[in-house]
Amino acid sequence: MRSFFKVKTAENIFESLRDIKPLGTESVPITGALNRVLAEDIISDEDLPGFQRSTMDGYALAAKDSFGASENLPTPLNIVGEVKMGEKPRFTLHRGECAQISTGGMLPKGADAVVMVEYTQMVEDSVVEISRPVSPLENVILPDDDVKRGQVVLHKGSLLRPQDLGILAGLGISVVAVFIKPRAAIISTGGEIVDISQKPEAGQMRDVNSYTLGGLCIKSGAEPLYLGIIRDCFEDLTLFIEKGISQADVVLLSGGSSVGIKDLTLDAFLSLDGVEVVAHGVSISPGKPTIIARKENKTLWGLPGHPVSAMIIFDVFLRYLFGRLSGLSNLMENNNRPIEAELDRNIESATGREDYIRVKLTNVEGRWLATPILGKSGLISTMVKADGIVTIDMNTEGLYKGETVKVRLF
Amino acid sequence: MRSFFKVKTAENIFESLRDIKPLGTESVPITGALNRVLAEDIISDEDLPGFQRSTMDGYALAAKDSFGASENLPTPLNIVGEVKMGEKPRFTLHRGECAQISTGGMLPKGADAVVMVEYTQMVEDSVVEISRPVSPLENVILPDDDVKRGQVVLHKGSLLRPQDLGILAGLGISVVAVFIKPRAAIISTGGEIVDISQKPEAGQMRDVNSYTLGGLCIKSGAEPLYLGIIRDCFEDLTLFIEKGISQADVVLLSGGSSVGIKDLTLDAFLSLDGVEVVAHGVSISPGKPTIIARKENKTLWGLPGHPVSAMIIFDVFLRYLFGRLSGLSNLMENNNRPIEAELDRNIESATGREDYIRVKLTNVEGRWLATPILGKSGLISTMVKADGIVTIDMNTEGLYKGETVKVRLF
Repeated sequence: MRSFFKVKTAENIFESLRDIKPLGTESVPITGALNRVLAEDIISDEDLPGFQRSTMDGYALAAKDSFGASENLPTPLNIVGEVKMGEKPRFTLHRGECAQISTGGMLPKGADAVVMVEYTQMVEDSVVEISRPVSPLENVILPDDDVKRGQVVLHKGSLLRPQDLGILAGLGISVVAVFIKPRAAIISTGGEIVDISQKPEAGQMRDVNSYTLGGLCIKSGAEPLYLGIIRDCFEDLTLFIEKGISQADVVLLSGGSSVGIKDLTLDAFLSLDGVEVVAHGVSISPGKPTIIARKENKTLWGLPGHPVSAMIIFDVFLRYLFGRLSGLSNLMENNNRPIEAELDRNIESATGREDYIRVKLTNVEGRWLATPILGKSGLISTMVKADGIVTIDMNTEGLYKGETVKVRLF
Repeated sequence: MRSFFKVKTAENIFESLRDIKPLGTESVPITGALNRVLAEDIISDEDLPGFQRSTMDGYALAAKDSFGASENLPTPLNIVGEVKMGEKPRFTLHRGECAQISTGGMLPKGADAVVMVEYTQMVEDSVVEISRPVSPLENVILPDDDVKRGQVVLHKGSLLRPQDLGILAGLGISVVAVFIKPRAAIISTGGEIVDISQKPEAGQMRDVNSYTLGGLCIKSGAEPLYLGIIRDCFEDLTLFIEKGISQADVVLLSGGSSVGIKDLTLDAFLSLDGVEVVAHGVSISPGKPTIIARKENKTLWGLPGHPVSAMIIFDVFLRYLFGRLSGLSNLMENNNRPIEAELDRNIESATGREDYIRVKLTNVEGRWLATPILGKSGLISTMVKADGIVTIDMNTEGLYKGETVKVRLF
């Protein structure tokens, strides 16, 4: 049973995750909704701003009353009132009349434009001269200019940005339905791993992966649940994985780079009811020794022990997975569009696998230069030095110095 | 006093913010330190991993014992022990000896390399044949390969990323000193503004800016403090601004696009002890009617009432200001590097001011196309449609269709 070997391509794995369903929904106040994923279409049941609004300080008037006005021959108009902010004017303008208005004020009946105060001059207490004509609707926002009643203003599956919170506020929506944040149980494995509060003995290492993975979870909109370290006991491992399945949507095991602990992880996955192993090995470098299993809508990940490899696998698959669980509609593009940079050195790559190259970025006269960072995938310091990752796809043998590459910031 | 008019360029304003000092520091556990700004250089007081570590499953040996080994003429070595994970091997290798080792295991004395299990074959219980030579240090991480004792691993002023948390964990640092998050008091002003829980009467508008500004604060690493709405009462306005100054590092007033409320804001700023007005008008479009004042290390912002204008001013100045208050060393580049796109239409611009153009991005065969979104700055929906902003600098009259522009995502 243990001996089968299902090495999969990245494509295979995305395929097997495609039917992962978003989690349920919950209601949150808009002050706490930034970066959450909207779980409903927002359809406006009103026009916004809902009334004709001035965009300038000046005089409301009927545009036709200003036609022909010029500096040499200004048109006098009678001021019949002043629009108070936040109030509906109680008067109506007739031929030859105007009213004082401030930015944001509501146009009175009979007015269809606003002339800026700069182009007017008071001649008497109640008469103003207009020195420039205005067109109908000039300096005016129509009642449905911002939002039309019945319009979909925000779509289900979108990540809420500050401006999206603004339009919700404008429509009086103080609470919205968002998808529940995915939870990820994080377990570190390996006989050499000790808690960060402990001083390692010779041969021991402090747990690094729980913290890089926890940070990546938060960045991906998921909540990490730190379960701790299992050294090499099958019973404990199984117990922790079951705990993870019951408390979280995704179980991330890491560590156990050695064949021994990998076998243990695989055995533990296989021993659990309803768990199916999806992949045992992935054609990605670094990151190959990854085990992926699934139980209904939950997934279990036996990530490599090397911190760089675990981070790459997270970035390639788990960011995508958390997007799906969060109900995000624009899975690949939304939060981290790659930037273009020029490679400053050749990189070799084996065909038949995707290579992920750590790079440092330097800005040279407004252009980005990407310098590959070499170093074993067991060295977390190489990720600390890196600004991002360049992908070399399966069918490419390498990249040349001077080529433009896409860098995903990390 | 009120009548002076200090229109400033963006450059002038950055200049006047240059001496803003970072806030104090606090200690946080690394599980809560993502995206916080480090307030100390982290200098390692140990080597990492601290011992010679295998990166492969196989046999630890002295490299010279493998020289000359080939598939046709494999070299037999005596297996004298097995390295247990997390333990210091108690034996030493002599000439012709090797030991079983797993990935992450500690090399025994006498070994300087590891041969992968794939290139070995067991011939007897305690003899293994090596079919390929290894070089000294092959498949080995040196004690200081990841981090050298005394090395600065992370610099004061850097934004903590997942990998940075990882290296802290690796060094046993579970709590770090970070800069305190800036707090921003948010006040909406204007006689037409009502709370979002209220149904606006004709002529009234719900408060949009508190929510867009609050979202932008959170995105910039600051904590919003929502103080509410002041309609047009000078005493209340002054009281709220004083409350803001006492409880927060930055006071953001918005709304009051009309000259009346602008005057009130300016009067309120001028009435406060120790407050100095830095700018009254900014040569940026949209966003010109902005008032900036300062009291020691605290700043007061009378932002435009139009939501788009307020967002632009925030993006240009407040993101920078919160960066300074947060102690961030890489103020402009760190969290949001612009992406390049091709403009799909000409844009005109007046010289003598910076223009900020909202654009929508479309991906056409791997390239980004930027389409300008026109529309008055009073319409929040235009920001909802936009993906980012293109800047046209003061000395440029416009941009042509087909030009490459930098888009700051929003």
